[in-house]
Amino acid sequence: MRIDIISVAPNLLESPFNHSIIKRAQEKGLAKIVIHDLRKYGLGNYKQIDDTQFGGGAGMVLMIEPISNCIKDLQAEREYDEIIYMTPDAKTLNQSTANTLSLKENILILTGHYKGVDQRIRDKFITKEISIGDYVLTGGELAAAVLVDAVVRLIPGVIGDEQSALTDSFQDNLLSPPVYTRPADFDGMKVPDVLLSGNFPKIEDWRSEKAYERTQQIRPDLLDNE
Amino acid sequence: MRIDIISVAPNLLESPFNHSIIKRAQEKGLAKIVIHDLRKYGLGNYKQIDDTQFGGGAGMVLMIEPISNCIKDLQAEREYDEIIYMTPDAKTLNQSTANTLSLKENILILTGHYKGVDQRIRDKFITKEISIGDYVLTGGELAAAVLVDAVVRLIPGVIGDEQSALTDSFQDNLLSPPVYTRPADFDGMKVPDVLLSGNFPKIEDWRSEKAYERTQQIRPDLLDNE
Repeated sequence: MRIDIISVAPNLLESPFNHSIIKRAQEKGLAKIVIHDLRKYGLGNYKQIDDTQFGGGAGMVLMIEPISNCIKDLQAEREYDEIIYMTPDAKTLNQSTANTLSLKENILILTGHYKGVDQRIRDKFITKEISIGDYVLTGGELAAAVLVDAVVRLIPGVIGDEQSALTDSFQDNLLSPPVYTRPADFDGMKVPDVLLSGNFPKIEDWRSEKAYERTQQIRPDLLDNE
Repeated sequence: MRIDIISVAPNLLESPFNHSIIKRAQEKGLAKIVIHDLRKYGLGNYKQIDDTQFGGGAGMVLMIEPISNCIKDLQAEREYDEIIYMTPDAKTLNQSTANTLSLKENILILTGHYKGVDQRIRDKFITKEISIGDYVLTGGELAAAVLVDAVVRLIPGVIGDEQSALTDSFQDNLLSPPVYTRPADFDGMKVPDVLLSGNFPKIEDWRSEKAYERTQQIRPDLLDNE
């Protein structure tokens, strides 16, 4: 899978992709992530990429022309399955979208910054708009990093133990049950007996029950969607 | 505002906090973000921080003792308004939580990794559990970065133009209206006439209407919550 990201602040994305599992996925050749600095497509001597809003109002808007040129350059090299714009005013990312995207070959992600991008970019080029949640960030870079992380870890072979991804929260519409590790007693705080029982069918029952309980208590909306 | 973050992969957090607005907030003395490497509190010669789950199952669990020692060291230095655990099985972050947290003085954030942390940590130390959305990430580091970004940008003085933060999506339960900037005509794609009219009351009406339309189309659930 190849993921291209267009950003005005490519430095922000350095560390998330150069460490941990995403780095390993790239080393294994399972994912290739390429970051493109929008500034290179800036206009004139000052490499202008943004300007004030038509109609007045605070905040700068990313101009259509630099982004348009950058996207066209990339499209000349390969076909993209999706051109995604990260923005809070879009449908919210969920595990099912991450699953779907993990099966694609080429994805292009445009990250907004400041007040967002000229609407005409969204009308003309973008095939999918994704928000990572109901909150505002200083830019789309962290949102893109979150999307890439959620998607790349689902590519077969990226996570060592695939069983682990299957038992994550949301894969079955339930939150995860509580987990415990050694020591069994820490300052009087004990691990539930059932987990030490070696009775695996009983342990499975307990986990299902706890997963359901936790979901009902914290996120009852997930149960409504079943 | 001071934010301490406990992580097993502190490298992941380098670039998000050393660039852009979060960097500027720290330079201005408006925010101080300190990352603590959990590995320093690891047990024995191998600095062990995780172990397999009681009851069987894939994925490693962060042990209670190193985290407990790290939190206690930090608590000895200052009182925390909240000790937050980033995890997908929690209430979802929204703009209102970000607003509330932006008023705190000291926040401690624990980021999970692998299969999560021993449940007893959550029972004993954590005052607030936050998910950034209904998807699973390789670790809590990106989630912590998202939380810090959403919160720190709301601290007065961090964003140059505060008006801009007030007109963001979600601050009024509506998504943002479309934005446009120069040129007014790009390859035949034109900016809506009203934005070029100079008639500001009319522009405000148009923006409100578009914000409402977009919210109704993409996120009708936001309107239900009013």
